[in-house]
Amino acid sequence: MREFQLPARLLLGPGPSNVSQEVLRALASPMIGHLDPAFLEVLDEVQQALRQVFGTTNAVTLPISGTGSAGMEACLVNLLEPGDRAVVAVQGVFGERMSAIIERCGARPVRVEAEMGEIVPPERLIRAIEASDPQVVALVHAETSTGVAQPIPEIAHAARERGALVVLDCVTSLSGMDVCIDDWAVDAAYSGTQKCISCPPGLSPVTFGPRALERLERRRQPVQSWYLDLTLIGRYFGGDRVYHHTAPISMILALHAALRRILEEGLEARFARHRAAHEALVEGLEGLGFEMLVPEPHRLPMLNAVRPPVDDEAALRRRLLAEHGIEIGGGLGKLAGSIWRIGLMGENATGAVVARLLDALRDSL
Amino acid sequence: MREFQLPARLLLGPGPSNVSQEVLRALASPMIGHLDPAFLEVLDEVQQALRQVFGTTNAVTLPISGTGSAGMEACLVNLLEPGDRAVVAVQGVFGERMSAIIERCGARPVRVEAEMGEIVPPERLIRAIEASDPQVVALVHAETSTGVAQPIPEIAHAARERGALVVLDCVTSLSGMDVCIDDWAVDAAYSGTQKCISCPPGLSPVTFGPRALERLERRRQPVQSWYLDLTLIGRYFGGDRVYHHTAPISMILALHAALRRILEEGLEARFARHRAAHEALVEGLEGLGFEMLVPEPHRLPMLNAVRPPVDDEAALRRRLLAEHGIEIGGGLGKLAGSIWRIGLMGENATGAVVARLLDALRDSL
Repeated sequence: MREFQLPARLLLGPGPSNVSQEVLRALASPMIGHLDPAFLEVLDEVQQALRQVFGTTNAVTLPISGTGSAGMEACLVNLLEPGDRAVVAVQGVFGERMSAIIERCGARPVRVEAEMGEIVPPERLIRAIEASDPQVVALVHAETSTGVAQPIPEIAHAARERGALVVLDCVTSLSGMDVCIDDWAVDAAYSGTQKCISCPPGLSPVTFGPRALERLERRRQPVQSWYLDLTLIGRYFGGDRVYHHTAPISMILALHAALRRILEEGLEARFARHRAAHEALVEGLEGLGFEMLVPEPHRLPMLNAVRPPVDDEAALRRRLLAEHGIEIGGGLGKLAGSIWRIGLMGENATGAVVARLLDALRDSL
Repeated sequence: MREFQLPARLLLGPGPSNVSQEVLRALASPMIGHLDPAFLEVLDEVQQALRQVFGTTNAVTLPISGTGSAGMEACLVNLLEPGDRAVVAVQGVFGERMSAIIERCGARPVRVEAEMGEIVPPERLIRAIEASDPQVVALVHAETSTGVAQPIPEIAHAARERGALVVLDCVTSLSGMDVCIDDWAVDAAYSGTQKCISCPPGLSPVTFGPRALERLERRRQPVQSWYLDLTLIGRYFGGDRVYHHTAPISMILALHAALRRILEEGLEARFARHRAAHEALVEGLEGLGFEMLVPEPHRLPMLNAVRPPVDDEAALRRRLLAEHGIEIGGGLGKLAGSIWRIGLMGENATGAVVARLLDALRDSL
């Protein structure tokens, strides 16, 4: 077993994105205890910064000790009980994953589907909510498998009017485009650290609003997951500091540094930077014969699904990785083999990165 | 939000332990993708090293993307189905936690209890196994809340004879004392990275043997956790590399470095180092009027439960932290306020560390 030597990579897939030196430095801080007063101060600041990034005043806003999928599972297992109904928008792999987890909670998914690459039209979701009177409505804001930005506020407000709780997947959108948990009437949301936050993968920021906490208190049965039981987790993050599990300390220190960079830049400036990089990428790719999968009004800025103008897309991706050190994501599910997913997330959403990718493509095509 | 300045700490609580510069350096490696061929090579080496440390040839040996409690939950939710029976040894907080998770699986815990600070006698567990014919027997090897080393092999062999699967908690013992998954007839086991492995918290190494995998294949119902479904996770770690969730890349790089240090030292030398540090600590503490909670034959080397010779134990711990930068763990559960838990784990199991602690105690008492 030798010390590994990893090649330098420009990470333009669906995540992880590249991480700044500042965040890596924080990650490598000497170890400290999870109940140390100095660490708990950092933790409080992480929670406060996450509230700003989520656009919420929710007290229960914290990083779950797992990746984005753990956050998805945390939101659903805490809010659903066996026999419940959950309307779920399925237009890609992550909506499909929500549906699978809803079933594993013993609840019934009421699926409202769209083709990969399209949004689920709000009016169809609203009709399904009216028809099935669900306990939960589950939506993916930024569908990472297709590059689609699902419209949220109109559906969420309709769900709240009918007494349903809205669970929102913001894994890919958070800190790269507008996310307004409170204004949009979202009751629980989760994200991941390795996308637009530009922190290593391993934590899932989640937020639970007052209606979600009320549902949690009134549960008839315990949450099926002990590890993801938000009531138990909340006792460590709340004032009581009751031990639940040992927090992933290094990762939380890195998240602190990543959030500091985000708030220093300012959310609006960060969104504009993602938007500008996306526009430059689309223009450049179209000039090279790539076709965007998603119609213009519904494109995500940070995750671009494109059809490459070649027969063997995998060979071209391997060449970009080997010769230029650039990682691009392939398609998932039905889109495997036919699309690329080009991420411009966090640190990588810049004109210089776009120019480097376009140069490499011109060289490789 | 400012850059944090953390104080230097000697971490002599129940974990995390201090982490070497080498491991911190690996942790801070520039980011790389979770499907990058260079990363997958590191991952293969991590799995191979974990097999050596666990004492197993189990193919399914991998780090779960969560802390030790996620590994506990992963082992139990994959192997239990509603209506199953699980004999569980409860002699502290972590046996209690296993019992709670067994219940959340819809299974029935058959609890065999002992006072905190004592082992659960093997003959009582074997009688319970014979009487209840359980699907699973759940044991904590090193009970971190009490410092007790539970005898395992005799119970595990008896369980296997009766067709029950043995799940073993090695969170605190792994790489600090003998753990022999295959020789002991253990079918599934989990650990944590932040104890004797001296890696940051955030991963839970687990191993599943052939009988456990067979049980998994024959399940009547899906595993209640999607995130911890070992069949799905195994497709990423196995040859297929099917995406399940984004692996916590930085943490896995750190674990690679930590495991390399362990195998370079050699397991037997490492166990002897833990034992020698423990013996020096006990001698020194008894000279200062501390009393060991656990009778000698059942003491863990890496986690020492002691009654301090003072009325206000918390005040003395605060003083050690503030004046000497030394963190000591307090008691959990019924032992809160009456014992200390002194960890000598991984990097910290040395005579120099013991001497520094004893000096600080002489100064503070």
